[in-house]
Amino acid sequence: MQNIPTPSLIIDLPTVKRNIARLTDYARQHNLALRPHTKTHKSLRMARMQLDAGAIGLTVAKAGEALTMGAVCRDIFVAYPALDPWRREHLATLAKTHSVRVGIDSTEAADLICDSATAAGVTIGILVDLDVGFHRTGLQSPRQALDLARHVSQRNGFRFDGVMFYPGHLKHPYDEQKKLLQPINAMLEQTLDLLRRDGLEAKIVSGGSTPTAYQSHLIPALTEIRPGTYIYNDMNTVSCGYVSLADCAARLACTVISTAVPGKFVIDAGSKSLTSDRRSIDPDNAGFGHVVEYPDAKIVRLTEEHGEVELGKSSRTPKIGERLHVIPNHICPCVNLQTMTWLKDEAGNLEPMAVDARGQVW
Amino acid sequence: MQNIPTPSLIIDLPTVKRNIARLTDYARQHNLALRPHTKTHKSLRMARMQLDAGAIGLTVAKAGEALTMGAVCRDIFVAYPALDPWRREHLATLAKTHSVRVGIDSTEAADLICDSATAAGVTIGILVDLDVGFHRTGLQSPRQALDLARHVSQRNGFRFDGVMFYPGHLKHPYDEQKKLLQPINAMLEQTLDLLRRDGLEAKIVSGGSTPTAYQSHLIPALTEIRPGTYIYNDMNTVSCGYVSLADCAARLACTVISTAVPGKFVIDAGSKSLTSDRRSIDPDNAGFGHVVEYPDAKIVRLTEEHGEVELGKSSRTPKIGERLHVIPNHICPCVNLQTMTWLKDEAGNLEPMAVDARGQVW
Repeated sequence: MQNIPTPSLIIDLPTVKRNIARLTDYARQHNLALRPHTKTHKSLRMARMQLDAGAIGLTVAKAGEALTMGAVCRDIFVAYPALDPWRREHLATLAKTHSVRVGIDSTEAADLICDSATAAGVTIGILVDLDVGFHRTGLQSPRQALDLARHVSQRNGFRFDGVMFYPGHLKHPYDEQKKLLQPINAMLEQTLDLLRRDGLEAKIVSGGSTPTAYQSHLIPALTEIRPGTYIYNDMNTVSCGYVSLADCAARLACTVISTAVPGKFVIDAGSKSLTSDRRSIDPDNAGFGHVVEYPDAKIVRLTEEHGEVELGKSSRTPKIGERLHVIPNHICPCVNLQTMTWLKDEAGNLEPMAVDARGQVW
Repeated sequence: MQNIPTPSLIIDLPTVKRNIARLTDYARQHNLALRPHTKTHKSLRMARMQLDAGAIGLTVAKAGEALTMGAVCRDIFVAYPALDPWRREHLATLAKTHSVRVGIDSTEAADLICDSATAAGVTIGILVDLDVGFHRTGLQSPRQALDLARHVSQRNGFRFDGVMFYPGHLKHPYDEQKKLLQPINAMLEQTLDLLRRDGLEAKIVSGGSTPTAYQSHLIPALTEIRPGTYIYNDMNTVSCGYVSLADCAARLACTVISTAVPGKFVIDAGSKSLTSDRRSIDPDNAGFGHVVEYPDAKIVRLTEEHGEVELGKSSRTPKIGERLHVIPNHICPCVNLQTMTWLKDEAGNLEPMAVDARGQVW
């Protein structure tokens, strides 16, 4: 392992396979379609593994990601109101050869995207976005959802396919989260009932973040889930109790570069390789990632190229040049910072792996 | 401007020229060498403009950045203990054709880098890193600095050139900051005195972040300053009172994509284009950047691809599809996230500009 530069993100292939198999088995058992969000890995190889295991399609956030992922998958859902002219024109082009669906929450977005679809002579599937409690995007009531579904179903270039939601407010231990599913079920049932009475069929009901993935069977209306983080995991999923450290497939290899300041050591991993993302639980105190070799230490401050680590109760002090591994707080933006990653196989061999959709900012 | 995709970082050329000219004039007036830190722009074109205006060389954080910037400059300072094997071997190679200096704070780093220098048959200049109060890296006392300087001056492959420091703890309004310069001056004077008595000459005394740049004349020992942010500025430099909004050269163009949730609107700029960096002053309340067209609004939450903006006292509500511009909290990691940027000239024309050293993670 000494022959790769630091900082470098190492992806453990056996752990990835286990993470994929576990969720795929769960989805199969509960008759849920699995459409992984590829924003986490941005990798064609990882996407192919998810599809080979049984995913029915892929989720992306951006048109650029859709174009990249289109190389390995014919069925793409853009969980984002992709209404910027560049995005909607490229999605319309992609829809000539691929099944493309988009999630929206306004008639304005609908009309803009529809203009591009009709200009390209394609049909784009639409999922109407519901706000189930995260209060970021999404329609506020079943009635609003019905109105937008009606609007969509009347436009050439569109096919109304159903509803989507993103339960981003749910990132708690499972027992706490369970009671928060009730209002989601109520909103979904009312919305689907209104649609049904209007003769509109929601073939797809798409939800399911990683934190809620294994509770998806408690939301009976769901037909499809879109978790992303589960493939690699991170300190956010560990600290919520969903997984253990051993389920974290991605670790940033780094080097100790200074021990000059008493009580701390410094690694060559800062905000430009780990991101400044704080942990979702206890952000003020949790630090900026978990140092595998010094579990009692805490990454107390990140600047661009430095991670400052307080030793805490650690009895050992690392040496300058020592190689360590950090499990990031939030793996998705961390992957996005890497020029490339390293895939570590069962035998411990490292192979370069591209972050294919990195730089697809649009 | 409607013809570029969003989010896109637009760099205003007239503002860049003004920012470069102002600091170059100041440095000239006070007989200080200017060696800008290129981590901010990572652009060969911007580096060339800084050099053409009078910078004597460039500063970088990484070996990869040094290799990139070596295309336009023969005199590179790596303000980082670049002791990872990949870094030190590449720096030794660069030193065959360029003047290369490195800042270090340990004999271990010295010996590792020296091994690579002697193996390549080159000489690397060394600046000894002093901790003047930021407590990240740097030797703790003049005596420790002397010991490392002695160690360095006895090694073939090295040339002892002087001392460096990074006053990262100073990011306050100028009047507050002024009194904090006194301990820096005391430590520098004691260190230089010790070195002098030992027959070691510090030809270079290198300091000067952007927050302290215009107070450099209050640190008489300084021979060289290494500010980075000043070329573009950001909400950190604005909120400290160093510059005004008009001095911010970099603005992220983005699009309003949702207004479904009452009291807020959503832009297509999240942590994957703005970073999660909080403002250095009042981080809990300052939000994640300044919306130029809605100065009373506040970016209250960033997820990967969404920026949620509360309207506050704004009387207008933006429309879906409306194009806005955000001045980031911290421009350096924001630039690092861009695949490319757009340079806007005096006439308002946009030209693509590469982020040449992006992806140089090592």
